[in-house]
Amino acid sequence: MTITITAFERSPDGGMGLARDTRVRWALEEAGQPYEVRPVSFSAMKEPAHLAVHPFGQIPTYEESDLVLFESGAIVLHVASRHAGLLPDDANARVRAIAWMFAALNTVEPPILELVTVKFLEGDKPWSKDRLPLVVDRIRSRLAQLSARLGDADWLDGAFSAGDLMMVSVLLRLKPSGILNEFPGLAAYVARGEARPAYKRAFAAQLAFNTARPPAG
Amino acid sequence: MTITITAFERSPDGGMGLARDTRVRWALEEAGQPYEVRPVSFSAMKEPAHLAVHPFGQIPTYEESDLVLFESGAIVLHVASRHAGLLPDDANARVRAIAWMFAALNTVEPPILELVTVKFLEGDKPWSKDRLPLVVDRIRSRLAQLSARLGDADWLDGAFSAGDLMMVSVLLRLKPSGILNEFPGLAAYVARGEARPAYKRAFAAQLAFNTARPPAG
Repeated sequence: MTITITAFERSPDGGMGLARDTRVRWALEEAGQPYEVRPVSFSAMKEPAHLAVHPFGQIPTYEESDLVLFESGAIVLHVASRHAGLLPDDANARVRAIAWMFAALNTVEPPILELVTVKFLEGDKPWSKDRLPLVVDRIRSRLAQLSARLGDADWLDGAFSAGDLMMVSVLLRLKPSGILNEFPGLAAYVARGEARPAYKRAFAAQLAFNTARPPAG
Repeated sequence: MTITITAFERSPDGGMGLARDTRVRWALEEAGQPYEVRPVSFSAMKEPAHLAVHPFGQIPTYEESDLVLFESGAIVLHVASRHAGLLPDDANARVRAIAWMFAALNTVEPPILELVTVKFLEGDKPWSKDRLPLVVDRIRSRLAQLSARLGDADWLDGAFSAGDLMMVSVLLRLKPSGILNEFPGLAAYVARGEARPAYKRAFAAQLAFNTARPPAG
């Protein structure tokens, strides 16, 4: 049974590991599952063939015999549900780990993605400079709450889980901004995630993938 | 076994059903599970007792004997996993229904929530008026893709599922804006959701809850 995922033919971050295929690669590495990667160009992402797999024209997707999936959260949850290593055995702890996945994607990531909106999508607008501090403050509020909950623990709820995988992946997006350093507990949490052998393998794989071909232009 | 959820003591929408407890009420109604509701005031939401249940100080939460959960996506998935009526039996179809839940929460809802940011949180800012069309255009892009995928089907992937429950709930947030009417297929899809007896019971329950006490001030 071959697992095939899609990734940007050339990631906009040039291999910093911030594209969403890294989350799926990481989950597959934690689960010890080999996988293949099919590159998709920006133009091909909006073509019918890719839209049939991903209705919103994004990456990653996941194919495994007759299962075709999109949404990195759903893919990571599927991998975590099928293989050991990413969800606890206890039924309640399992449900709580999944809740942290949703918290990462629906509560913590949206304000972080607004940083991309204000800096890039609307970077040329006259309000961009004045709006940035508001966006950053909303991120800080969420991080303060997350930091308070994490406290001195290594992971969010007992052992490392798919919830931590997703939360660390979301927080990694903040690295270039420096905001993470205002919360030393969260910065250390992210560093613990990055130190995991499975993360290192996933990061190295996406870096090699993104630097294997000459840059565009 | 008693299920207890939390809801706003007084919902900011005054009972329009747009607060996230409605999604959980709807799922519980589809699953035929009785539940109790504990109101939480805005000030109590930021107190240690509630933060112990919901680290981000929001509603809804879910308590069922010794399981304590937050994040409406996780709660709906938990209810759907435990009871019939919200997820298909076929393993692959089940995973795809869950993917639509993630798509609703992580791909479709974030641009929709920006409408709240631009209209209310930043409604008094000088850029609010000029920024609104950009936010609306981003919503339109997502809706066009969703509408193309739905086509003439009643639901996103076969029979009604938790994925539809979440997608309809997210799209309902657009009703006051009128944007939904630009996509008749999606407007009809939302109307099909609203017509479900379980949704009607959930809506009526939250309305009664929000109008049972005199308005604040």
